[in-house]
Amino acid sequence: MSAGRYTYLGPEGTFTEAALRTLPEAATRELVPMVSVPAALDAVRDGTAEGALVPIENSVEGGITTTLDELAFGRPLVIHREVLLPIAFALLVRPGTGLTGVKTVTGHPAAQAQVRQWLSRHLPGAVWESAASNADGARLVQEGRYDGAFAGEFAAAVYGLEPLATGIHDASNAATRFVLVGRPARPAAPTGADKTSAVFWPRDDHPGALLDLLQEFAVRGVNLTRIESRPTGQGLGRYCFSVDAEGHLTDRRVGETLMGLHRRCLKVRFLGSYPRADGAAPKVARGTGDEEFAEAADWLTRMLDGPG
Amino acid sequence: MSAGRYTYLGPEGTFTEAALRTLPEAATRELVPMVSVPAALDAVRDGTAEGALVPIENSVEGGITTTLDELAFGRPLVIHREVLLPIAFALLVRPGTGLTGVKTVTGHPAAQAQVRQWLSRHLPGAVWESAASNADGARLVQEGRYDGAFAGEFAAAVYGLEPLATGIHDASNAATRFVLVGRPARPAAPTGADKTSAVFWPRDDHPGALLDLLQEFAVRGVNLTRIESRPTGQGLGRYCFSVDAEGHLTDRRVGETLMGLHRRCLKVRFLGSYPRADGAAPKVARGTGDEEFAEAADWLTRMLDGPG
Amino acid sequence: MSAGRYTYLGPEGTFTEAALRTLPEAATRELVPMVSVPAALDAVRDGTAEGALVPIENSVEGGITTTLDELAFGRPLVIHREVLLPIAFALLVRPGTGLTGVKTVTGHPAAQAQVRQWLSRHLPGAVWESAASNADGARLVQEGRYDGAFAGEFAAAVYGLEPLATGIHDASNAATRFVLVGRPARPAAPTGADKTSAVFWPRDDHPGALLDLLQEFAVRGVNLTRIESRPTGQGLGRYCFSVDAEGHLTDRRVGETLMGLHRRCLKVRFLGSYPRADGAAPKVARGTGDEEFAEAADWLTRMLDGPG
Amino acid sequence: MSAGRYTYLGPEGTFTEAALRTLPEAATRELVPMVSVPAALDAVRDGTAEGALVPIENSVEGGITTTLDELAFGRPLVIHREVLLPIAFALLVRPGTGLTGVKTVTGHPAAQAQVRQWLSRHLPGAVWESAASNADGARLVQEGRYDGAFAGEFAAAVYGLEPLATGIHDASNAATRFVLVGRPARPAAPTGADKTSAVFWPRDDHPGALLDLLQEFAVRGVNLTRIESRPTGQGLGRYCFSVDAEGHLTDRRVGETLMGLHRRCLKVRFLGSYPRADGAAPKVARGTGDEEFAEAADWLTRMLDGPG
Repeated sequence: MSAGRYTYLGPEGTFTEAALRTLPEAATRELVPMVSVPAALDAVRDGTAEGALVPIENSVEGGITTTLDELAFGRPLVIHREVLLPIAFALLVRPGTGLTGVKTVTGHPAAQAQVRQWLSRHLPGAVWESAASNADGARLVQEGRYDGAFAGEFAAAVYGLEPLATGIHDASNAATRFVLVGRPARPAAPTGADKTSAVFWPRDDHPGALLDLLQEFAVRGVNLTRIESRPTGQGLGRYCFSVDAEGHLTDRRVGETLMGLHRRCLKVRFLGSYPRADGAAPKVARGTGDEEFAEAADWLTRMLDGPG
Repeated sequence: MSAGRYTYLGPEGTFTEAALRTLPEAATRELVPMVSVPAALDAVRDGTAEGALVPIENSVEGGITTTLDELAFGRPLVIHREVLLPIAFALLVRPGTGLTGVKTVTGHPAAQAQVRQWLSRHLPGAVWESAASNADGARLVQEGRYDGAFAGEFAAAVYGLEPLATGIHDASNAATRFVLVGRPARPAAPTGADKTSAVFWPRDDHPGALLDLLQEFAVRGVNLTRIESRPTGQGLGRYCFSVDAEGHLTDRRVGETLMGLHRRCLKVRFLGSYPRADGAAPKVARGTGDEEFAEAADWLTRMLDGPG
Repeated sequence: MSAGRYTYLGPEGTFTEAALRTLPEAATRELVPMVSVPAALDAVRDGTAEGALVPIENSVEGGITTTLDELAFGRPLVIHREVLLPIAFALLVRPGTGLTGVKTVTGHPAAQAQVRQWLSRHLPGAVWESAASNADGARLVQEGRYDGAFAGEFAAAVYGLEPLATGIHDASNAATRFVLVGRPARPAAPTGADKTSAVFWPRDDHPGALLDLLQEFAVRGVNLTRIESRPTGQGLGRYCFSVDAEGHLTDRRVGETLMGLHRRCLKVRFLGSYPRADGAAPKVARGTGDEEFAEAADWLTRMLDGPG
Repeated sequence: MSAGRYTYLGPEGTFTEAALRTLPEAATRELVPMVSVPAALDAVRDGTAEGALVPIENSVEGGITTTLDELAFGRPLVIHREVLLPIAFALLVRPGTGLTGVKTVTGHPAAQAQVRQWLSRHLPGAVWESAASNADGARLVQEGRYDGAFAGEFAAAVYGLEPLATGIHDASNAATRFVLVGRPARPAAPTGADKTSAVFWPRDDHPGALLDLLQEFAVRGVNLTRIESRPTGQGLGRYCFSVDAEGHLTDRRVGETLMGLHRRCLKVRFLGSYPRADGAAPKVARGTGDEEFAEAADWLTRMLDGPG
């Protein structure tokens, strides 16, 4: 029986578990760590779990491609919730290293912007070299290549390191975004502050294809908050696009936009409409609200019946 | 009783009457010439006529602004039919003038392109000077300013001139377009080769307004065959746009486009859907046919009910 | 000798002469009324006049097509100046008619908006019927069809009528725009508040042609203040577009836009850059100023030489 | 001394080394494997290597984010060459496993499309489950979770597996793309079949930002062959865009496009113009060739000097 069980990307103690525990409903579920995003999602597909919490986007390292590709290419699932978790870095070192012993530091290239102020204050002489990921940086410290790595505090245990400083972040809202994924179902009722996720495969390979499809959103005043291109596996330069848009599928402007994509694309996969974690209501541009769609439909009906 | 009476822009014997007589239904109506376009249309508005045939567009001299403005600003009327009449010029001269006596010729600037070949063959030495209109050119010949005017043959009688040559035209399809206008009513059923006319008043004055509104057409694959800007009377630079689009109001792509304009404009006035005089079926771009709109709507319904 | 002579669209005493006399340089020129716009312009082309003042646009009745077509199709001329003249209507009646005798009034359809307030105050019971033009309305009053016509006060003499009221206008800035046209020459230096006029002939007949060409302006932040379609004489649906844009040909954004049109159009005719009559400096969008164009060019040069 | 040494993403024996050896110049260089993309690139930055070959894009698994981010955020480098290498999968199993023992298989989700035909022919009953990457799939086979993994043949040695079948691929051109990166320098002369790579940071956060910037390419007929969004580290929803465009920086349409981006973006980083590996010359749309740019510039000069 799946009700009552949520899987998540393990192991225990990582950011993903922390994110999951911010959901009130998590208190009444059994929370089961899984070894991978596909494994967490397959448990939902197979009915052994009700939902799975997986990371989808990280403002430092980017889209979580496994999640994006599973949602795009795997057996259909939809997003029911999103969770945002602020990113705070720890400076991880080999046990026994002190601040004065840190001459070289590493981390993902985009993390550098997040720790620059802290570095200039506490380690003005340290040399930065980038790593492929924050976790990879930690591994390179473990191997002795660098003295310190900026990563999540929880990575310390994984790589046998110690946090020399924690809670490091700059002013900007660095965050990881997680989604609670479930089996396809009627979307939850709109809250007034919702997002809609979808993946679309352009029919045409021509260069203006993306431009043309973005026009479908723009003409109806639908804002995008995320766009990522993913290869379709059909050759270099062949993409599908994974997007989050402001609004709910029941918003007329969103529904008409997705129908427009459906008509012009090879395929559109709807990935769910769900409440925004930040609760920010979208700015609805003049002429794109539901009542304006309804008025326009009434007007069209009158014209079809005979104006005047 | 209005049934059975058609008014038209008089006087008798002009192109407008000739155009009206090409309509089979004209044979069973009383045809009444009127002194002006407003007078012809007011007879319809007042119920003393069933329809009025008036010129709307001329491929040489341009849009007939009185007609455009009456349809845009006057009491609502709609277009039921269109008629195309080829333009053929006559060279009009004062009685007694022979070809050798024609040293100077006149006509509307755009007419020059239509008579260039004829001129180079028959009057290679004649000097062309433009007039404000073809009729004005005829008047200037009557007044003795020029020796010959290119105009419709019927203008000869009006200005006391004689046609020295007739049937002059170049290869291109120079034509005048007339519309049969009636009281607002349910549009005739689509024929598969229809046009839809409308006027829209942009809400915003900003320079991208026209561009944005043309996107409403483009995104849905609706082609325009005519576009004219007309002043709204609210000051220089304040326009409404009068357009003809391929397709019928019952075509989903056309209906959705007009609803889009309705939402984003100050006002849209629907001027009718009617068969194209040339019978040319529109090229319906992939993704914009009615069955594709229906499929997309079905898909949306499935998604709203819960995908999978 | 042409210097010192300006022609204008006559006769004497019309708005055009009034507009011409607002130009300081008119005081030192001989001012010669001509019977038509083509005649006024031909005097410039032939060198018998230095300049010609002709109306180009009227916020009530629209573009002056003779002027537009002469500038687009006739021997090349350019605009050196523009003049704006407010439109004020007079109520013209047959001699002896008093206010109580005015039961029916006429005028151009777009004039109705300008006189509505005056009518509701002074002639609440009068019935309005539209005429093809304001002048035509005056003629119809002369012929006895209507009791009063709204037109320019100067039309009274032309049609044997009397002004019963003058200076009628509503709040909006109804105006006629005139241009001082001269032989092609280097444009006057930019003043910071300039306009550029041009005509372009799209190469392609496809429906998106206008949309694509408007993108050339939009991408470079160049605002249009006037756009009119004019038939090319090649058949219905074949247009060229006559536009006024904010800015001077020496502004980089304007020059690059016109070069873009030149590349993508069959033909572009530059009609001049000249000071705006209203002196309003354009809002230059971020990224489109001359200094930003210069910076971008410097950057490109550095990249071509080898970045770093 | 750096001349004569190329680094590459190691270890020896992987696809990257194979790609590097397809370059004629590799025969005369010392080829040095490095542990990571940043390490390979830093050797170039520090002058200890002349160039570095690193993967940038994979038609199955997507953009190589470390490479993209190093090129976008790290000390400036430029691309000098690209190399394409077809992807062929091997089915990797634990030593001793035969085809009949393979009940479950894994691999990256997008790899599934590449091996579907092979699977249906040779292993019709096998169950597919996705892994986070092809390498991860191999690891999961090593750990005993699955019986077979589709990955590069070279991965067998890394994970102690054996290839049960090799050369598996479907009809489409699955490939990995590598770039040879060097220190900033004047771009090589155009070959007629070139690409230009760049990263741009939109100035505005508004949703139409990407649309507007894609218009800069579209208006000048510049085709994109790759587009990827990467987080800037400034918060969720804040992106820069990494693109490849057809053409060379010395092509006028490409130079003008990049200048347009430079004007409207916070920052543009030019990543090099280099010959296309496939030698395919771009289709240059009418109006966007160098000679048409030159003609337009000549025309503008004539207009600035005074038309006519």
